[in-house]
Amino acid sequence: MTQTTTKVAILIFDGLTALDAVGPYEVLRSVPGWEVEFVGKEPGEVRTDSGRLGLSVDAAIADRPDADVLLVPGGEGQRALHSDDEVLEWLRGVDRGSRRTTSVCTGALLLGAAGLLDGRRATTYWQSIDELRDFGAEPVVSRWVEDGKYLTAAGVSAGIDMALHLAAAETAPEVAQAVQLGIEYDPSPPFDTGSPAKAPAPIVEAVREVTRRRTTLP
Amino acid sequence: MTQTTTKVAILIFDGLTALDAVGPYEVLRSVPGWEVEFVGKEPGEVRTDSGRLGLSVDAAIADRPDADVLLVPGGEGQRALHSDDEVLEWLRGVDRGSRRTTSVCTGALLLGAAGLLDGRRATTYWQSIDELRDFGAEPVVSRWVEDGKYLTAAGVSAGIDMALHLAAAETAPEVAQAVQLGIEYDPSPPFDTGSPAKAPAPIVEAVREVTRRRTTLP
Repeated sequence: MTQTTTKVAILIFDGLTALDAVGPYEVLRSVPGWEVEFVGKEPGEVRTDSGRLGLSVDAAIADRPDADVLLVPGGEGQRALHSDDEVLEWLRGVDRGSRRTTSVCTGALLLGAAGLLDGRRATTYWQSIDELRDFGAEPVVSRWVEDGKYLTAAGVSAGIDMALHLAAAETAPEVAQAVQLGIEYDPSPPFDTGSPAKAPAPIVEAVREVTRRRTTLP
Repeated sequence: MTQTTTKVAILIFDGLTALDAVGPYEVLRSVPGWEVEFVGKEPGEVRTDSGRLGLSVDAAIADRPDADVLLVPGGEGQRALHSDDEVLEWLRGVDRGSRRTTSVCTGALLLGAAGLLDGRRATTYWQSIDELRDFGAEPVVSRWVEDGKYLTAAGVSAGIDMALHLAAAETAPEVAQAVQLGIEYDPSPPFDTGSPAKAPAPIVEAVREVTRRRTTLP
């Protein structure tokens, strides 16, 4: 019996938001025949945006020019890569051969900086949705947005939903259903404040204020 | 203005399930005044159960005898610790002074092995729920179960829900609501198969079979 392996490359970098990457990882690594690898500028540790967690880069992007599925997580750290030619060239190169090119949260802005979302419908973290226009993309408020092979998810936790959709689309719904049960993903949040359309206005304003302080103070 | 810091210790080890730890981390690290630290037997890298992801241990448990909130994730790797006296002693020691002792997924079995769930109501991963009895706990099928200061979550993704509840209970509902919006946790899974009560029987059987193969083959 031969089984084709689907190679998934998740790009990680200093200042990423951990759940953006680890949510989809947990889904995609459970798909039979799929192999996830965490790649980055160089092998070693990257630190997440809180500074409180380190993730391992297992392979340098220079050594991984191809992937069937490319996933770019977000976090404020992605902004430093908008002017990193090595990363931008790598993204464009992998995208040329990929079956799927995907992002979670503000990872979409990095795809945009690489020129990969020009003229496409896309989504990102709710606080960054308008920034998509800077890269020629059409912002869509949705849990995830599919435009051809491009699949972009909303903020942080949305990567789990997007990855389940991706697994279903690329394999079979039953496979994604089994993965969902495998990670016991039967969400039951104690509140219904997970989107700016649902949260009370003072909560929305408080979260915006935290972001403002984070990006204006050193 | 003084602010009390709440110290959160997340125990990680080889063979943990990444999302068990990273889901709650993303919630708890966003609570103002809370500081999360990943601790383990020794500083360095641990590899998750898939073998495809490394997380950093930032402090040795020997150097962290106290925490306000203790969180133990699951994964098959926790079983090796049931007979690890250093870890069991550490868990009991931290628990003596903790405000909250918590677990995600089969992390509850490790709390049980340390004797911390004896006579308590608790939950764990759906496939392991009966094993709680081995440690004198009363199994409860629920997204999370609170018994005094002990808070145990169901499988993998349930740690996110549990952590939001914990943040609300220890601070204020508005804080947890803001954190939920911060991680855009407005779940929209493409299927409704996240619990054995909801998934079709053949899906449930398929997932059980994967587990059986994993634990019977080397």
